[in-house]
Amino acid sequence: VTQPMKGGDGPYNYSQNSMLQRGGVETASALIKDAIMEKLDLKPIISSSSPSKCFTIADLGCSVGPNTFIAVQNIIESIKLKHQSYGPHNQDDLEFQVFFSDLPKNDFNTLFMSLPSDRQYFAAGVPGCFRGPLFPMASLHFVHTSYALHWLSSTPKELTDEKSPAFNKGRIDYYRSSKEVFEAYTAQYTKDMESFLSARADELVVGGLMAIVTVCLPNNVSISECSVSAISGLLEASLLDMVKEGLISEEKVDSFNMPRYHATPRQLENLIEKNGCFSIERTEQLVRSKDLSSFASNSQMVMAHVRAAWEGLIKEHFGAEIVEEVFDRFLKKIAEASPFSQSSVDNKPVIESFLLLKRV
Amino acid sequence: VTQPMKGGDGPYNYSQNSMLQRGGVETASALIKDAIMEKLDLKPIISSSSPSKCFTIADLGCSVGPNTFIAVQNIIESIKLKHQSYGPHNQDDLEFQVFFSDLPKNDFNTLFMSLPSDRQYFAAGVPGCFRGPLFPMASLHFVHTSYALHWLSSTPKELTDEKSPAFNKGRIDYYRSSKEVFEAYTAQYTKDMESFLSARADELVVGGLMAIVTVCLPNNVSISECSVSAISGLLEASLLDMVKEGLISEEKVDSFNMPRYHATPRQLENLIEKNGCFSIERTEQLVRSKDLSSFASNSQMVMAHVRAAWEGLIKEHFGAEIVEEVFDRFLKKIAEASPFSQSSVDNKPVIESFLLLKRV
Repeated sequence: VTQPMKGGDGPYNYSQNSMLQRGGVETASALIKDAIMEKLDLKPIISSSSPSKCFTIADLGCSVGPNTFIAVQNIIESIKLKHQSYGPHNQDDLEFQVFFSDLPKNDFNTLFMSLPSDRQYFAAGVPGCFRGPLFPMASLHFVHTSYALHWLSSTPKELTDEKSPAFNKGRIDYYRSSKEVFEAYTAQYTKDMESFLSARADELVVGGLMAIVTVCLPNNVSISECSVSAISGLLEASLLDMVKEGLISEEKVDSFNMPRYHATPRQLENLIEKNGCFSIERTEQLVRSKDLSSFASNSQMVMAHVRAAWEGLIKEHFGAEIVEEVFDRFLKKIAEASPFSQSSVDNKPVIESFLLLKRV
Repeated sequence: VTQPMKGGDGPYNYSQNSMLQRGGVETASALIKDAIMEKLDLKPIISSSSPSKCFTIADLGCSVGPNTFIAVQNIIESIKLKHQSYGPHNQDDLEFQVFFSDLPKNDFNTLFMSLPSDRQYFAAGVPGCFRGPLFPMASLHFVHTSYALHWLSSTPKELTDEKSPAFNKGRIDYYRSSKEVFEAYTAQYTKDMESFLSARADELVVGGLMAIVTVCLPNNVSISECSVSAISGLLEASLLDMVKEGLISEEKVDSFNMPRYHATPRQLENLIEKNGCFSIERTEQLVRSKDLSSFASNSQMVMAHVRAAWEGLIKEHFGAEIVEEVFDRFLKKIAEASPFSQSSVDNKPVIESFLLLKRV
């Protein structure tokens, strides 16, 4: 069963609580613009004898906006600039079709109602899982995906199997857990990325580009040193406290595992090389224009960010009635622990990696 | 402002109350299959040197299903049959991409969650008004639209202008109303159809087909003889009774007009010929395999059918609190008047017309 990015409701909905991702999308915009100017060959499209000169873009894991609209707008403006750079062409000749894709459970109604009214592209929504085929062969010119690839299609079965050495008892994550749990997570991520790359290799035209923004563990940081480890540890501790007080059953915690994995950039590059259909044209770490320390030191904001991403899954697994209590306790633990403070032993933040691939 | 097909909620939702349309879609299926076998040239697609051999289909005015899935499945099966008729080809080579399009307010979430899990096509949703461009130039091979073209993009402004000769006082429709009202409706329909045809002419490849199923007034029937006239007359009478009793203001009825128009097949053909981009390959009246008289004689079913289509707009204009009352009164009037009975003077039913156009 594929796990959707199930955000929170009301004040913790994803649109209102994805400012961190938005900053990343904006920072990546400049890199994408450069990449299009340097690496994209538009000539096969504009010199085509076909009556249609349409450039097709897909945003995979688009959620409901507004980040997806910002990313898409930047891609289109960059392509228009590139088009102009070839000399005098009729700009109106080039059309754009944009496919916004996410899991079928995504709120496409909200997405469609929020489409910019002055958009200069044909919009379509594509419901489906990006671990499999979503588009016809060689039908896309540009794929964009940000803050989506760290979600797993599902958590490995072994994690909830009492007889398995990877049984993840009393844990909700692979950070600080056993080697077997980590390996099961890694195997799932590897399988998911292989399916993702294989599907995109079919769908992108030769010469087409794929821009990836994803959250990574830095290459030389061990998982237990990572601040994400501390954050999920605090969520886990909140749940375990509630088990002790009889508010949640032990079995419920044992059977819950967070369906996301942070690969290192090196791991990701290895998987791309193994696939063999893409050249890695650029890979770098996003450097945020704005300092994130004010965010990290604000417990309420950290809680809202985590809640926006996880409330849906927590609710689905543990029941709606305990959600407030879980995040109240979590908020208190963040305020006490200051996981991002310099003195913390596990204060190494995850990084945001940008990769540009070309279909060869 | 574009008027959506706003169906009812709960027991009067469109999915559950579109059996009449479903019968029409099923009856049209055989005609569409014949048309594809006789009129469609697949060779430009299958002999293309491009790595992609994808046949693109759009259903315009798809609503939420299931009728759209039945129509699309029939089109795809027919194209596969046609493909086989060319001799031994690898059937897997031919891919299908289906665009389900309706107004942005359509419930695409329901549509996407109901997509057949065994579908053999790539699905996409396209939010927008089919009176304007929805797709890139020459990007579609087949367009299907059923029970959608009789909806107007809006009701003419004159109808609610006290100073206009087309002011439609005390009326909610053009049937049995003044010549000026009828002309205003006709002008709106003409404009809407011109925009529709012009957009589709851009989007369909040369040789591409468009199958239309739409509700028409028979060529030689005057509008006052038509049973639809009786039906909307009864809805109007229900509203006017409520005005008399002070439950609705007179002004509310004066400012409400039903945004749909039934052209004759001849009118439609004239508009297509005037557009000049399509040849009319077939035009005929749907002959239902099942007798509809049992439907017509069942007042409750007639009410449910009308309510499924109109409840949303009635609610929006008059307020949710009066909806039950309106349709209770309407039901009683249908039972009393038996508008479909042989003895009624206005018992000529509308017809369902099938047209097959080819982009030339």
